[in-house]
Amino acid sequence: MRQAAGSAETLTDRVIREVKDRLAQRALTPGTRLPSIRAFAAAMRVSKSTVVEAYERLSAEGLIVSRPGSGFYVDAPLAPLSLADLGPKLDQEVDPLWITRQSLGRNTELLMPGCGWLPASWMPQDSLRRALRMLARGDAVGLTDYGTPQGLPALRQFLVRRMAGQGVEASADQVVLTESGTQALDLACRFLVEPGDTVLVDDPCYFNFHALLRAHRAKVVSVPYTAQGPDLDLFEQALARHRPRLYVTNAGVHNPTGATLSPIVAHRLLKLAERADLTIVEDDIFADFETETTPRLAAFDGLHRVVYCGSFSKTLSAGLRCGFLVARPYWVQGLTDLKIATSFGGAGLAAEMVLAVLTDGSYRRHVGALRARLARARAETTEKLRDLGLTPWLQPQAGMFLWCRLPGDMDAAEVARRALADDVVLAPGNAFSLSQTARSHLRFNVAQCSNARIFSVLRKAIRAAS
Amino acid sequence: MRQAAGSAETLTDRVIREVKDRLAQRALTPGTRLPSIRAFAAAMRVSKSTVVEAYERLSAEGLIVSRPGSGFYVDAPLAPLSLADLGPKLDQEVDPLWITRQSLGRNTELLMPGCGWLPASWMPQDSLRRALRMLARGDAVGLTDYGTPQGLPALRQFLVRRMAGQGVEASADQVVLTESGTQALDLACRFLVEPGDTVLVDDPCYFNFHALLRAHRAKVVSVPYTAQGPDLDLFEQALARHRPRLYVTNAGVHNPTGATLSPIVAHRLLKLAERADLTIVEDDIFADFETETTPRLAAFDGLHRVVYCGSFSKTLSAGLRCGFLVARPYWVQGLTDLKIATSFGGAGLAAEMVLAVLTDGSYRRHVGALRARLARARAETTEKLRDLGLTPWLQPQAGMFLWCRLPGDMDAAEVARRALADDVVLAPGNAFSLSQTARSHLRFNVAQCSNARIFSVLRKAIRAAS
Repeated sequence: MRQAAGSAETLTDRVIREVKDRLAQRALTPGTRLPSIRAFAAAMRVSKSTVVEAYERLSAEGLIVSRPGSGFYVDAPLAPLSLADLGPKLDQEVDPLWITRQSLGRNTELLMPGCGWLPASWMPQDSLRRALRMLARGDAVGLTDYGTPQGLPALRQFLVRRMAGQGVEASADQVVLTESGTQALDLACRFLVEPGDTVLVDDPCYFNFHALLRAHRAKVVSVPYTAQGPDLDLFEQALARHRPRLYVTNAGVHNPTGATLSPIVAHRLLKLAERADLTIVEDDIFADFETETTPRLAAFDGLHRVVYCGSFSKTLSAGLRCGFLVARPYWVQGLTDLKIATSFGGAGLAAEMVLAVLTDGSYRRHVGALRARLARARAETTEKLRDLGLTPWLQPQAGMFLWCRLPGDMDAAEVARRALADDVVLAPGNAFSLSQTARSHLRFNVAQCSNARIFSVLRKAIRAAS
Repeated sequence: MRQAAGSAETLTDRVIREVKDRLAQRALTPGTRLPSIRAFAAAMRVSKSTVVEAYERLSAEGLIVSRPGSGFYVDAPLAPLSLADLGPKLDQEVDPLWITRQSLGRNTELLMPGCGWLPASWMPQDSLRRALRMLARGDAVGLTDYGTPQGLPALRQFLVRRMAGQGVEASADQVVLTESGTQALDLACRFLVEPGDTVLVDDPCYFNFHALLRAHRAKVVSVPYTAQGPDLDLFEQALARHRPRLYVTNAGVHNPTGATLSPIVAHRLLKLAERADLTIVEDDIFADFETETTPRLAAFDGLHRVVYCGSFSKTLSAGLRCGFLVARPYWVQGLTDLKIATSFGGAGLAAEMVLAVLTDGSYRRHVGALRARLARARAETTEKLRDLGLTPWLQPQAGMFLWCRLPGDMDAAEVARRALADDVVLAPGNAFSLSQTARSHLRFNVAQCSNARIFSVLRKAIRAAS
């Protein structure tokens, strides 16, 4: 029998807390019947009189109501949807939402090797300024009106040509602009996922996938990720066992590992998906970091069962809210209707700015310089981390991430906790791992690792945690 | 017994179509058991052998599967969420999604007295251009970084002062910036509404509320709107009968009627809401159109059970995607987490632009001029419509809408259909009315009525429909 949380908690308190937890987690919703007194007593391993007392106190609080001869029913209003309540209880150091809030907080005291974006100084500021001045001279309709239902046609055309470079064939009619890459993923989930559906993700994967899928009340199942893509045997087992509706993954540079999908794995994965009638959402957010194009599932599949998403947050500006989604023609109308219903416009002025920057001739140079700078930073950061006993899982071909293992079996959350006390935000492995099997890993963003203080703080934290 | 849709449709075809409709509407989801052959035969008033044949053909198509001794089960993947399938089947002339797609389409041939926004030439273009130039000179972080979790603090502070003018007391900590007013509503629904929950709306109401709530799979119930607000007797009955979770309404100028809430109705409504533990989402999208402040539920209630939303699309720019939501302090963290999970950033550069325009000194003048211009346009349009026998339901104190009744019992959808043939997009009443009781109404946007051709087309359409 489990211990009560506090010494002062009685058995009745414990039963009450359990019911309130279920209400908060919406496991019990208004009007539903509570477990019978006998069943709940057995489940909680308490006496029936304890449950009777708990139910009476909950009735007095107005949370439940007794219907004679029928049992107790929830009378409380539905608890607001809380992502925190829907997921496992995590320490804040490994709680993705907490890490994200800290990283987004623009606290200039903080160093953020754990965050997922480039420093402002790495972004194409001159192009952005030029685009702003150009828009200032542009026509009024672009300045003031809602975007068209699918979004700026010229940007969709541009995206079609860009995708062709990644081997993804699509027409502009298949492209829907959204207000961010995340919104594109959200829209795809909204369209395809029903509450209670099972969705596969990689383990580890981008941590916001967990939060996003929790918001859709999906059941999330993870499959270990290898250096060539998901472990196919385990992927196949997961398909058979969980009959998932969807698989959400990264294209190109995998977050957090920096791995890239091999053509063989891509091909086999799509064969498995076809057999299981699985739909795939492929998030190509890091596309422009690649020097050589790696396989896209959307390219192999021809956008039949793959929905392809992306944005410009990572290489252009995260402040310009503009993403996109590309899907089979038959789905585009439904996706567009859902977008209008839930966000009305789409990108608007941001789409005009993105197009201006992408087409002003300097973007290609900017991206080239960025790739070279990232390659240098990966090499330098790898070396500095090795000095501290941290080994990258693999040496990525592209991108900003290094997925590193701490020496020994050290607890990354403990290291992160100590580093945070010195104003350094780290990203501990288990934030990315549904199975919580990345306890000794940390994800480093090499573009945010130029400050030497990060490594002295890390050294101190590792020593203290050893 | 109903007639088959086409003469060639057999009884078996009809049963098959029924099953496919249920799959499309997600009334049947993967893995669920189909009705027994006997039950379905009785329900469809066909013989059991007809259902057997239909089920066999559906099995051959791979949509359902037989489990011997147990019955037939859905084997098809879940149909994507289609708003069209979730709602009633409407002619496109009264289908809000269709009207919206047409209006957003930027077809310059079309005249759009039915749309819900001002012409580009009415918007503060000079301020917007100034703001763009100012941002071009601004700091890099604003240009390139994600917004902070709740959004630009200075804009939230500004909103607090602006709300104070409407009697709504809040702190900047209670404000969450979003990527649009619609996204703010969507976030509130996401936080508060569970699939299957009942939500009250006004009848008539802004038509996108219907689509938004369908996307949340809410059961929507409407209450007739009077010139002073919702009909309170019917509102009370709806509370008792449907136990709704939420009431979604417009603050200030009501869309489509132009009515304004009276203080007495506001007060009584909140008392009813309190008794029924109803949460209210109040959409104050037209705030800046008002010359005199009318009651806000959020002001009376102190943001206890009211979530207050808005944006700057109507008076500043619809191309700048930036809205906001204000809620009780206890909910802000949960709402922010959900926003991060589903759209990551918030407003970003758009928030900086909105703040720049709102604070550049000319916005107040712009809004003053807009109100005067709208008052003139309301008077002029009223007169022109009266010449055609159209009477406004009431003379609004503010805003761009006139809610008008056609002469006789004329079908507004028929008039809209004919006007569309002449490139004039109208907004027929039933698009706004869940109960479909606004058959003879049209909503006119006076700011889009300056072209005389609208009235000649309308005259012709009315004659033809008489």
